[in-house]
Amino acid sequence: MNQPHVYAEHGFDLHFLNKYASLMAAGNGYIGIRASHEEDYAEQVRGMYIAGLFHRATPNDSNELVNLPDIVGMRIELDGEIFSLQGGERLAYQRELRLANGELQRSLFWRAASGKRYQISSTRCLAAAPLQLHLAQLTITPLDGAAKIRIATGIDATLTNSGRQHLDELSVRVFDQHYLQGHYRTLDGANEVIIGCCCRVPAHASSSFAAKNRRLMQYIEAEVEQGEAFSIEKLSWITSSLETYFCAETAAESALSALKRCAARPWHELVQSSDRQWQDYWSQRRVLVESASPQDQVALDFATYHLKAMTPAHDERCSIAAKGLSGEGYKGHVFWDTEIFLLPLHLFSEPRVARQLLRYRYLNLEQARAKASQNGYCGALFPWESAFSGAEETPEYAAINIRTGLRQKVASALAEHHIVADIAFAVVSYYQATGDEAFMCQEGVALLQACAEFWISRAVEVEGRLEIHDVIGPDEYTEHIDNNAYTNYLAHYNVRHAVEAMEKFGKRDAEFARQADDFLSRLYLPEPNAEGIIPQDDSFLSKPTIDLAKYKASQGSQSILLDYARSEVNEMQILKQADVVMLLFLRPELFDAEIAAANLDYYEPRTIHDSSLSKAIHAIIASRCQRAELAYRLYQEACLIDLGPEAHSSDEGIHAAALGAIWLGALFGFAGMSQQGEELHFWPSLPAGWQQMSFPLMWRGRSLQLAITRQALTVTLAGEGELTLFVQGKANRIAGTQTIALQ
Amino acid sequence: MNQPHVYAEHGFDLHFLNKYASLMAAGNGYIGIRASHEEDYAEQVRGMYIAGLFHRATPNDSNELVNLPDIVGMRIELDGEIFSLQGGERLAYQRELRLANGELQRSLFWRAASGKRYQISSTRCLAAAPLQLHLAQLTITPLDGAAKIRIATGIDATLTNSGRQHLDELSVRVFDQHYLQGHYRTLDGANEVIIGCCCRVPAHASSSFAAKNRRLMQYIEAEVEQGEAFSIEKLSWITSSLETYFCAETAAESALSALKRCAARPWHELVQSSDRQWQDYWSQRRVLVESASPQDQVALDFATYHLKAMTPAHDERCSIAAKGLSGEGYKGHVFWDTEIFLLPLHLFSEPRVARQLLRYRYLNLEQARAKASQNGYCGALFPWESAFSGAEETPEYAAINIRTGLRQKVASALAEHHIVADIAFAVVSYYQATGDEAFMCQEGVALLQACAEFWISRAVEVEGRLEIHDVIGPDEYTEHIDNNAYTNYLAHYNVRHAVEAMEKFGKRDAEFARQADDFLSRLYLPEPNAEGIIPQDDSFLSKPTIDLAKYKASQGSQSILLDYARSEVNEMQILKQADVVMLLFLRPELFDAEIAAANLDYYEPRTIHDSSLSKAIHAIIASRCQRAELAYRLYQEACLIDLGPEAHSSDEGIHAAALGAIWLGALFGFAGMSQQGEELHFWPSLPAGWQQMSFPLMWRGRSLQLAITRQALTVTLAGEGELTLFVQGKANRIAGTQTIALQ
Repeated sequence: MNQPHVYAEHGFDLHFLNKYASLMAAGNGYIGIRASHEEDYAEQVRGMYIAGLFHRATPNDSNELVNLPDIVGMRIELDGEIFSLQGGERLAYQRELRLANGELQRSLFWRAASGKRYQISSTRCLAAAPLQLHLAQLTITPLDGAAKIRIATGIDATLTNSGRQHLDELSVRVFDQHYLQGHYRTLDGANEVIIGCCCRVPAHASSSFAAKNRRLMQYIEAEVEQGEAFSIEKLSWITSSLETYFCAETAAESALSALKRCAARPWHELVQSSDRQWQDYWSQRRVLVESASPQDQVALDFATYHLKAMTPAHDERCSIAAKGLSGEGYKGHVFWDTEIFLLPLHLFSEPRVARQLLRYRYLNLEQARAKASQNGYCGALFPWESAFSGAEETPEYAAINIRTGLRQKVASALAEHHIVADIAFAVVSYYQATGDEAFMCQEGVALLQACAEFWISRAVEVEGRLEIHDVIGPDEYTEHIDNNAYTNYLAHYNVRHAVEAMEKFGKRDAEFARQADDFLSRLYLPEPNAEGIIPQDDSFLSKPTIDLAKYKASQGSQSILLDYARSEVNEMQILKQADVVMLLFLRPELFDAEIAAANLDYYEPRTIHDSSLSKAIHAIIASRCQRAELAYRLYQEACLIDLGPEAHSSDEGIHAAALGAIWLGALFGFAGMSQQGEELHFWPSLPAGWQQMSFPLMWRGRSLQLAITRQALTVTLAGEGELTLFVQGKANRIAGTQTIALQ
Repeated sequence: MNQPHVYAEHGFDLHFLNKYASLMAAGNGYIGIRASHEEDYAEQVRGMYIAGLFHRATPNDSNELVNLPDIVGMRIELDGEIFSLQGGERLAYQRELRLANGELQRSLFWRAASGKRYQISSTRCLAAAPLQLHLAQLTITPLDGAAKIRIATGIDATLTNSGRQHLDELSVRVFDQHYLQGHYRTLDGANEVIIGCCCRVPAHASSSFAAKNRRLMQYIEAEVEQGEAFSIEKLSWITSSLETYFCAETAAESALSALKRCAARPWHELVQSSDRQWQDYWSQRRVLVESASPQDQVALDFATYHLKAMTPAHDERCSIAAKGLSGEGYKGHVFWDTEIFLLPLHLFSEPRVARQLLRYRYLNLEQARAKASQNGYCGALFPWESAFSGAEETPEYAAINIRTGLRQKVASALAEHHIVADIAFAVVSYYQATGDEAFMCQEGVALLQACAEFWISRAVEVEGRLEIHDVIGPDEYTEHIDNNAYTNYLAHYNVRHAVEAMEKFGKRDAEFARQADDFLSRLYLPEPNAEGIIPQDDSFLSKPTIDLAKYKASQGSQSILLDYARSEVNEMQILKQADVVMLLFLRPELFDAEIAAANLDYYEPRTIHDSSLSKAIHAIIASRCQRAELAYRLYQEACLIDLGPEAHSSDEGIHAAALGAIWLGALFGFAGMSQQGEELHFWPSLPAGWQQMSFPLMWRGRSLQLAITRQALTVTLAGEGELTLFVQGKANRIAGTQTIALQ
């Protein structure tokens, strides 16, 4: 239990090929590599991506994360038979991802059509340091007589993003009959990628090399004795012009030198520095639960693993894609998911990373200002989807409607404006959790003010009060509505904190302050009605309801859209995810427990949870409302978004926000954590099956370790000095280790 | 025997997947479709091409025949198991291409991993008329209990040319819940392609449609009873902006209407007009042999089939690619192969097509003049490789040398100038065989003169005589040599015929005539030496020889280049194909039989036959020299270039010229045909195993049918009037049917 779990694939099944390629993907925040098998399968989608490396292939496409030339593929021929698990007979098969360090191992016994058996094992590992290094090992043992083994591997630049090619092949080289190097450039000339690799092969194997049709290949051939373990190691070095020290003139040479340096060292040495990085990562983040259901720990480890894999902690010009670096879904674009679902884990473990994710927005303020201005607003309107440039990447028009031939304007980029307030919310959280005044004074104030200016200009006056019209809240099944509760409350929060921060950091602007005060005093904030229900928007509560049981049963699949047009869904009380529940999550201080419960009870039956962001948040609110059973059921279901039995829902990558929500659910749900201003609160409520949960935490520069049982919360504060924690509403001064009894 | 052969695949083998995809490819001169299986295999390269539809994907590539969106693929799921011949058990498997009409049929029995058996058959046919129509049928019969069958098929635009994408997806549509249509444009905006399809499915099957990631798919699902033959028919209509009546505004609508019209007719009606076309084709071309080796007839039928499939007889702006329309080898470019190896079959069966192939050159005269001028010459220097524009498409630099990183200048485009004389030779042949004065007066004279002007400017004076320096003959293993016999003799022929034609058609140009006379009188024409050997070039005979047995044993693989650098090969008497033998083939009138024999004996042992153009020509000369056994052996080996057991040599397409040479070998070899000015000669020399050969022929507008036995040549002249044929050197006036005894 002290090591993060080993995540195992349950047998080989063609239907699950791409799901596991996503789930077991390697990543170090810079590079992501799908866990495709060495051998090819027709339906297998290979993928390697570099954070921030986007390109637009054709005028009808948008910028997308470029699928890079493949280094994983190995064509294996055993006595003339092409190895494939579709053919022959699988005698044993096991594949495991060590979440502790991202090592992917496969081990199998296979009987060829010829009747001869072979043992085939492979190990792959993308280093956590240096970020450019990938290691692969393949071992084949013929079990029935000697065998002629042929392996073809190298750098395969025939890969595309579903047929869209982004790279021009500048050069392919073989140095010293050993080192392969491919040099590529995006077709727009903006970025370069250099991929090098070399194979350590046994002395009795022969090698030849060839380049053709965008493939630079090494052909390895050997006669192998029965029982002899024939093993090759393939080292790859992947570098790009996004790296700080990339110099176009010398890059190819430097990349070659780096590869050579690695090739001079043994495997175990190469993985050491990577493993150390991973150990540090886990020590600062691992949530440990003693649960009657072992799957809870698997889910937490799985989520925590992927949070590292997906986060470009090395480069503030990049943020986290909706699918991380594990697939091409959403084209690698960045959404509000980052600030609301993914940033918290970093904020409470390594705040530098959270700061960097906010820096990404700060660096792109100009683009956000431009978008606001283009839309007739002031301040900054951050793009609904962004890539490297920070410009709006949501296609102006949705994919063509194949029945009408019409392309509908994409509503998200036009109206899903809450992202502006979400970013502001994350700025405030960051500042409160860290006290980072340097950041707040510069980036923080700039972001808050620009976002606040947007909201001020976005509001319209109706009979003396200010309203925000024609928006989409997080619930994308309800479009173009007025006074979305989530949006209005968060906009208000944004403007209030902008005023406060500007004041505090001596950046007061009289005109802004006047406008902001007016906004704050006159903005309509929907109050709970007589039944305690906060209306999601002006019209929602008056819309008809239908029985959603059928759609809830197939949640995540958007099956409602098979029965109803989007415009019809819009006119009913049908939620993809519940805005009000989301609001309760982010702003627990707004309403008391009774109101929260009333709203959960009202909105939960109306929510299909077709959004992967939905369920864990409902679990958190349920937990806060002491609906322990409901909370745990929703939480466990939320853990199944990637880990569940559905064969294809993760084909295009893991659900980054849903993974962040697994961590959120444990801490903000069951540990009852909440950040209230500069106060950190806990109101634990462990699920019935949990005996204990423990986790490390960073809070205002201090390192904590917490352990929660049903009876007590034990906290250890590292270092000197004291810190106040609020447990079940009571302030506790903590120094060293302290145990606080729970009521 | 009266029907063209059915060409059968010998079992299913992954290693041969792409060979058979080429060999069994469908083609109608406009469209070519590789014979990929319905289901996907990782190594399977799908391909559909339109003659003349080229595009350059990246700055480092050249124009290539665009691999179009796929219509052949069908993902078949049987009771949840994805059908693949790599899995389960093949109980029976048969695939046949009816050479008579291009119908491809597959029939198999398959046992799934579940143990359940299914019979699966499919038929596909690209219509010979209308050229845009493709028909496909799939029938699945569950043999062990009822089955749930799922089929996904549609239009898949994720295809690339080895990763190079040429098309932008403009629109994807589904009309009337039945007709799918994808509209694509080359990235340079120059060409459009519209692909439509629809599936006739049994009434109890359900269908749904989706478009995503460049795939427009129909999902067909049905519960099928045991023993029920579940059958779907898929009709496709493929149209492009290369068509004469293509109108950008109405094309999508017209294409849809055309598809609907087809869909309203039953299958047997749709194939009728196509089958008629094929019947006409065969009746004018089929060479029938009574041979002890049935493979001879297969090879002839196979070649004749592909000659139709590859020839864009509908469009004079296109010519024949080196791989026809069966694959991406040589990027779909046109070489001298067309005029020398492929044009003759058309010239002697449907001269209009030969004329059109020459018109292709005529239409591109400007580009050829530009190339000549860029290289400092007069007249027309036709490109070594050409595509649609007629500009030189040979990449300026060869593929990068992966060891040195250097790109060598491609010598062919710089020095393989004989193509100019080859085109002129074909012009003369065409005129002599048809007497088409209208053509000769316009296109013929223009081509002959422009080509002649090139040669005149290309010659250099050395001590009073004119020489042609620094060329490459057909033998590409000997580069940059002076006075290549093949080139000099053909250049001389070119200039002589230019002068004569200009004279005859009243287009005499005094200055040209003066220069031409000078050229003709002073051009050095290498004479046989004391041993009767015509030197291939100035230096060849003085170069050292080595034992070539090892390389001849692996002919076609260029294995010599594994042992020797190209520059070393250049300095030895090593031939890829023999220029002098080629010269003897084209200009039999130049030397007597003794000289021919001496040269065959000299050059044959020095020739590896690494060129697919080589062997059949040697067979022809051997036959003319009465080396019947050698001739037949070489001929049969030449027939194996595509049809032989090598697994991968045809992966990128059939060898068009080699197929043309199978026909050439039969007629110009064993029938002893030769065209001497306006005389048509026969000097038959059937192989020992042949009892008889017969074939139709067009000669000077007259339709002939010939039958040759060891004893006699019987000829039937259709229509009124007489015609002179030369048999064994003697003139015979033919009228009606006549039998001429052979000596």
